[in-house]
Amino acid sequence: MKPIGHVRSPLAGKEQIPTGAGARHEAEGVLEVLPELEAGLTDLEGFSHLYVIWAFDRAEGFDLLTTTPLDALPHGVFSTRSPRRPNPIALTVVRLLRRDGCRLHVRGLDMLDGTPILDLKPYLSSVPADELRRGWMTEAEARAGQASEPKTGAGQ
Amino acid sequence: MKPIGHVRSPLAGKEQIPTGAGARHEAEGVLEVLPELEAGLTDLEGFSHLYVIWAFDRAEGFDLLTTTPLDALPHGVFSTRSPRRPNPIALTVVRLLRRDGCRLHVRGLDMLDGTPILDLKPYLSSVPADELRRGWMTEAEARAGQASEPKTGAGQ
Repeated sequence: MKPIGHVRSPLAGKEQIPTGAGARHEAEGVLEVLPELEAGLTDLEGFSHLYVIWAFDRAEGFDLLTTTPLDALPHGVFSTRSPRRPNPIALTVVRLLRRDGCRLHVRGLDMLDGTPILDLKPYLSSVPADELRRGWMTEAEARAGQASEPKTGAGQ
Repeated sequence: MKPIGHVRSPLAGKEQIPTGAGARHEAEGVLEVLPELEAGLTDLEGFSHLYVIWAFDRAEGFDLLTTTPLDALPHGVFSTRSPRRPNPIALTVVRLLRRDGCRLHVRGLDMLDGTPILDLKPYLSSVPADELRRGWMTEAEARAGQASEPKTGAGQ
């Protein structure tokens, strides 16, 4: 796996990433794809949202049980978005604002400046809200006094 | 990157994977996670849908411009789900039917039997249908005489 590009994000440090119940990811920035891969972005501008698959390049090791900013209970790492996972792969849905050549201007970043991008894919369809269950996260948000509806918008 | 498990799928060969306009992925099967990682699945059963990040282990090389079963026009690889991409990473949303220890019974498989799984994540929220644009795919479906609404359900 080699980076296909890097994220230019206003988030310079972990403490700047919104976390916890009701956190919203509205940061705007640029996905800078390597110039030699620019042809691979052809037609991407027709899509409103993209999947960004990226590497947790500042995480080391993993925990099978982990706690998150949502509550104090341990949860299985695969039922969380923790960076400390067996393969340090991350997934974010962003809104594509515009494309300038190999630069994709997007909203909804939750990754740090300089993060390596592994892949980009078009976001094609959504799971209907009435079919979605969010397990322990709904319970944790309810305890924290937040609405338990799925968050909408670009950040996930 | 090492597999965290493998897919047990009824799809034995590429020709069995539904493709083209209106294709639906309803295949059921099992995500077999390595027994030593079972604790990482704790609480996963509370989620209705999962992201499965997996490897296109039978793809070699990549094309920056590619055609798909949807139409005869070339598109940038990052605006398609083609397996021949710079990093051979795939993403599928599946519905979680039930968990038996380290075996996850799911619906919505579009990967072949034996496919290596790289990561699992909870599906947390959807992009609202009225915010979603699907670019060249909508146009291709319209030409093929299919409805251009986003497909719903587990398969993407």
